[in-house]
Amino acid sequence: MTTPVASSDSMPDGASPDAARAVAESGRGLPAELVRLRGSIDNIDAALVYLLAERFKATQQVGVLKAARGLPPSDPGREARQVARLRTLAHEAELDPVFAEKFLAFIVEEVIRHHEEIAKGPVGS
Amino acid sequence: MTTPVASSDSMPDGASPDAARAVAESGRGLPAELVRLRGSIDNIDAALVYLLAERFKATQQVGVLKAARGLPPSDPGREARQVARLRTLAHEAELDPVFAEKFLAFIVEEVIRHHEEIAKGPVGS
Repeated sequence: MTTPVASSDSMPDGASPDAARAVAESGRGLPAELVRLRGSIDNIDAALVYLLAERFKATQQVGVLKAARGLPPSDPGREARQVARLRTLAHEAELDPVFAEKFLAFIVEEVIRHHEEIAKGPVGS
Repeated sequence: MTTPVASSDSMPDGASPDAARAVAESGRGLPAELVRLRGSIDNIDAALVYLLAERFKATQQVGVLKAARGLPPSDPGREARQVARLRTLAHEAELDPVFAEKFLAFIVEEVIRHHEEIAKGPVGS
């Protein structure tokens, strides 16, 4: 007997179709519900990675623009407004607002690191 | 002369329409391109918050399931597979794979904290 498995041709690279995962993980005795939830978590993670990539593309452009205009990499007023807005959004989405704020701080730390690198100029030039 | 601004009625709560932002921020002398990019970053952040909320809903269910079955909160094999997959996805999305790994670690730390709380049982019961 063969088990129907979604063709990898119909999936973006790196995606793990639920069907294939269920076959692989059920062999390890995991509850079917856990396998199903892990499939959803993996799909969400793929979406998060692509969104984060898009966000860093935008902040990269912001960094270039700020360096060209001599604007400082960090903008405390903007960050305070972002925190307030994200806490509101988190509340609506039933996400812990404290976590949402920590998450933004985590991202912004990386962004500022990028902006400081841009301000220093290209490596080796 | 009046400036056309998107009605807030057509926007989800907490969203900051680009048009309204442009009006508010151009008054502070920010370059139009920076205002536009910030609008995109804010939209991406809203999507990230809602996706993270959905991810924690799924991991919350995983936590309940694991506690009910007596499975350990952390699963190093699963985490190693997630890291490998996210690094591949990050590469495809042109996101720094090191950052993607740090990001997963940041999220997983919060998830394990939730799972430990679930394993301890409801507060006050």
